[in-house]
Amino acid sequence: MSGHVAVVGATGAVGQEFIRVLAQRKFPYSKITFLASSRSAGKPIEFAGQTHTVQELTEESFKGVDIALFSAGASISRKFAPIAVKAGTVVVDNSSAFRMDPEVPLVVPEVNPDDAFKHKGIIANPNCSTIIAVVAVWPLYKLCRIERMVVSTYQAASGAGYQAMVELEEQAREVLAGRKPTPKVLPHQIAFNLFSHNSKISENGYNEEEMKMVKETRKMFHDDNMQITATCVRVPILRAHSESINLTFSKPVTEQQVREALAAAPGVKIVDDRVNNHFPMPLESSDQDDVFVGRIRQDISQPDGRGIDMFVSGDQLRKGAALNTVQIAELISR
Amino acid sequence: MSGHVAVVGATGAVGQEFIRVLAQRKFPYSKITFLASSRSAGKPIEFAGQTHTVQELTEESFKGVDIALFSAGASISRKFAPIAVKAGTVVVDNSSAFRMDPEVPLVVPEVNPDDAFKHKGIIANPNCSTIIAVVAVWPLYKLCRIERMVVSTYQAASGAGYQAMVELEEQAREVLAGRKPTPKVLPHQIAFNLFSHNSKISENGYNEEEMKMVKETRKMFHDDNMQITATCVRVPILRAHSESINLTFSKPVTEQQVREALAAAPGVKIVDDRVNNHFPMPLESSDQDDVFVGRIRQDISQPDGRGIDMFVSGDQLRKGAALNTVQIAELISR
Repeated sequence: MSGHVAVVGATGAVGQEFIRVLAQRKFPYSKITFLASSRSAGKPIEFAGQTHTVQELTEESFKGVDIALFSAGASISRKFAPIAVKAGTVVVDNSSAFRMDPEVPLVVPEVNPDDAFKHKGIIANPNCSTIIAVVAVWPLYKLCRIERMVVSTYQAASGAGYQAMVELEEQAREVLAGRKPTPKVLPHQIAFNLFSHNSKISENGYNEEEMKMVKETRKMFHDDNMQITATCVRVPILRAHSESINLTFSKPVTEQQVREALAAAPGVKIVDDRVNNHFPMPLESSDQDDVFVGRIRQDISQPDGRGIDMFVSGDQLRKGAALNTVQIAELISR
Repeated sequence: MSGHVAVVGATGAVGQEFIRVLAQRKFPYSKITFLASSRSAGKPIEFAGQTHTVQELTEESFKGVDIALFSAGASISRKFAPIAVKAGTVVVDNSSAFRMDPEVPLVVPEVNPDDAFKHKGIIANPNCSTIIAVVAVWPLYKLCRIERMVVSTYQAASGAGYQAMVELEEQAREVLAGRKPTPKVLPHQIAFNLFSHNSKISENGYNEEEMKMVKETRKMFHDDNMQITATCVRVPILRAHSESINLTFSKPVTEQQVREALAAAPGVKIVDDRVNNHFPMPLESSDQDDVFVGRIRQDISQPDGRGIDMFVSGDQLRKGAALNTVQIAELISR
């Protein structure tokens, strides 16, 4: 029994997915409270056959709350998570605010469940593109240490929020009508276009999304020497991220070993039909819990047998955000 | 003066682009003939202010033709290119039919122009995704030998022909109207989706598109030991391919050296504005001759300084096909 559960950021794209996932998984609770900004307070929310009313998030919101799931952005988390912790609430935070804090465990239950129990009130949920990669990569790391990973992403509009999904559809309508759309949410036209991920570029030339992949993976794998490079790209897809992943192991591994490790891995669905040219696609991974993995093959550019190529696709809002957060809450509520 | 020029496959997506490129570049000719299948014969073609009539391609079509530009698929090239050569025509072939034939030079004028002059009647144009990569990679190879290249592509519908471009737009309309489209040209839904490239998978798990990138690059670079892996993906973009490229050099190179080499390279346009988050995008590289290159950065996963990451985008129909073919014809017509 998880007691009193609060959802912070209940009206955003991830918040809405929290509500679906909590209901579908019959997450145990004695009371549930939906919190959001004053702008959304008073709105009705249908949950598990009952109509709830969104409450305004204030410093008093966490009295008696046992677990709070946060997805209202880093600044809200930075302000309200410590207040919640002081009130005795365990916070599972989907923002980037605390992910790299050494006091805060960063958890994907399929990867490092034990870390969740070392929390001091806050557990962080990794970034979406990191989660989708590590669900597929960790079972292979356990098979044999991975020395280096080269990732190129194909990221959906949902990662930039609900309004970016709406923008993709609206822009597509405009382009099909022969008009040139004006970007509002995303920095460039997303319909029939793609562009480098819309996060700030660091001094080393990597954007924040890419550095999250590097740092968060190392933290969860407890391996600061794992070499990682990523190129993160936004594509005109609604809600599932895909990633092309190239791995270098410390020793030769066979394609067969990799297939067996993935077949036994939780949260992974192998979609790898070479005859029918059927591999992971966002159209099929959307609204699914599993990360789809395919195009599994020995990398011919590493003739020493230490290389594997694969392609993954997973729902950004689900495993990339809401589902993983709820799974963490389930883990610590057992 | 190139004399009598013939365009074979005049009515396809690449054929139409041939016509635009020949006119824009004022390609020199004394006579021009447009050839296509009997189905298209008789159709009018506007070229350089005059209306021409598409002629049916037959075994007699090449009498007196000095240069023929072929883009009607590999089986047409296999049948008619030898006939043309026998008639004294020089064939520049955009199909895959002769690319790996050791007797046939495979040419990108910015990379290996000298090879063009070793022809025995046929010169092959590389595959679109290979051309777009090598225009950016060759200037770096000249700077320092590249030992290994890891490429992930974001390929437009145009690579599957004009009908695939129409299908992308039609499917997008259907999805926006709430209907589920039925794929006809491409094997899977392309609107708001992406999938592994629609070419046959070899026994090693790579598809034909990927193996073209491996073999054609090695042939043009005259380096069979260059290690290459590619993951080729079709994305919902109309006519420009993008590629995420990770390089390992034989010695350390600096980002500055790479920038200087690219700035001096023909056919390359650097688009790399970190402050404004403005990098190569298909929206901007479409209808352009240059390959756009950006996201140039030292690869942090290769701490010995031998790694570079970059992202390129180039028009598939133009530099990826028609323009490169016309440039080869210009080269040997000088």
